[in-house]
Amino acid sequence: MTSQDTLTFHPQTACFLAPYLPAVFPTSSTHPHPHPFTTLTYAASLDSHLSLSPGAQTYLSGPLSKSLTHYLRSRHSAILIGVSTAVADDPGLNSRLRGVDLEGQPRPIIIDPDFRWEFTRDSRVLKTAREGNGKAPYIIVNASNAAAVDEDRLRWLAEAGGRVFWMPELPSEPGPRSSSSSRSRWSWDQILGFIKSECKVDSLMIEGGGVVINSLLSSPGNLKLINSVVITIAPVYLGQGGVNVSPAAQTGESGQRVSAVKFKEVQWNVLGNDVVMVARPDV
Amino acid sequence: MTSQDTLTFHPQTACFLAPYLPAVFPTSSTHPHPHPFTTLTYAASLDSHLSLSPGAQTYLSGPLSKSLTHYLRSRHSAILIGVSTAVADDPGLNSRLRGVDLEGQPRPIIIDPDFRWEFTRDSRVLKTAREGNGKAPYIIVNASNAAAVDEDRLRWLAEAGGRVFWMPELPSEPGPRSSSSSRSRWSWDQILGFIKSECKVDSLMIEGGGVVINSLLSSPGNLKLINSVVITIAPVYLGQGGVNVSPAAQTGESGQRVSAVKFKEVQWNVLGNDVVMVARPDV
Repeated sequence: MTSQDTLTFHPQTACFLAPYLPAVFPTSSTHPHPHPFTTLTYAASLDSHLSLSPGAQTYLSGPLSKSLTHYLRSRHSAILIGVSTAVADDPGLNSRLRGVDLEGQPRPIIIDPDFRWEFTRDSRVLKTAREGNGKAPYIIVNASNAAAVDEDRLRWLAEAGGRVFWMPELPSEPGPRSSSSSRSRWSWDQILGFIKSECKVDSLMIEGGGVVINSLLSSPGNLKLINSVVITIAPVYLGQGGVNVSPAAQTGESGQRVSAVKFKEVQWNVLGNDVVMVARPDV
Repeated sequence: MTSQDTLTFHPQTACFLAPYLPAVFPTSSTHPHPHPFTTLTYAASLDSHLSLSPGAQTYLSGPLSKSLTHYLRSRHSAILIGVSTAVADDPGLNSRLRGVDLEGQPRPIIIDPDFRWEFTRDSRVLKTAREGNGKAPYIIVNASNAAAVDEDRLRWLAEAGGRVFWMPELPSEPGPRSSSSSRSRWSWDQILGFIKSECKVDSLMIEGGGVVINSLLSSPGNLKLINSVVITIAPVYLGQGGVNVSPAAQTGESGQRVSAVKFKEVQWNVLGNDVVMVARPDV
């Protein structure tokens, strides 16, 4: 890693984050939790867009917020993205924070039910792992696709130290199915349980993209799986047509529209030109 | 005004606002500016929604942010809303800040090209004016509608001390017209110039709703008319289907998507559970 790539993040800047992060020394428990400590985090514009358009690299947040992201990565044992983000961004998925050794790097986890991420040996996350600057990715694929997978990608992944985890579908519900996509047969409860039990991950930072974030925010059941949110807002409007974060509408008991998601323990922190909200879902 | 209705706003809270507000004692000039000092202000959710659905009263911001709005109203000589907001919200459009006398109240201005706001004597803004708790509204209507206007509304308006201002259309552009709406024939440059010269307004707070805000944010020409923005963000997602603030997409010189609106002199301020951004458009 060259020195230009290395970021610093001053500990005092991180004080406000401490209560919202996984414990540095987790205490063992006789009743371990079935899910990892889960932090949902993203940076958006004033109009709640992650990027100018799907697949467009968009530099939203300032240098301090960027360092914050890399600090957060170093404080979780894994980071999760959806396959669309992997395809669109070719991300490195490591922490470039100064002083983070390989053990302190987060494990990249890509949710890719149909193994459609066409990475190569030159994809950034694999190069980063081969160079010792990050861990190799775990890719979670629908077990029903195990027979049809091409061997090249499995080999490249193995060379770098990564692997595919084959995750079974949820048992079919009786009655007609509303969707044939394999993704729809995984619940977040199941995904996070699998990541804890099979991938041995205690703390997980969910980074995106829009599909993953909106899905997590769109049901109270999913919100219960989230321990903390860290949302950065940059002082800019990206404008219509961007990748939008906005959960599904929710209705109250008498059918009226109600706020889709509320938060508790809200704290706002100014970081350069950006503002960062830390909070917990109020469910 | 009952004492429960009265709001307070501590001067020290307003320190951060001072550089972004119109001067308390405007200096006279031999070359007066053709437009009022214009502040664009609104409160939105994390997903940039003003309300749960068009016309739905949505209580987004906390008590401190509410007081901020009423302080801002007392610091401008007029407040502007679009007709859709007048129809949907039946707003009072006065400042309920303790100590604001009638002279310190802002003049409500409603942009209503087709005079479609069906107010009555009991509409809140007229009652407020008759009770001496605010000024009566000025309604800006397309001059071409002057012959067809019903006399009841003109009389109710006059009783309370308000009036209609008949604003001419812009001269037609040569060639085919893309829209027949009278609104589209007014530019914001023309509207703000009219408000300064005809309504004698030196400082204007533009409060909404979505149509007005998005229109102002959607072209660099309009952004040049805005001196300050005061945007409150509440820690909640309203969810899809709400009234969204997101300007039209903008493209750069080589046709690529670029940020629709950037800001300069950005300051974020925490107000209770909300955050307030004050800034100026960077155009």
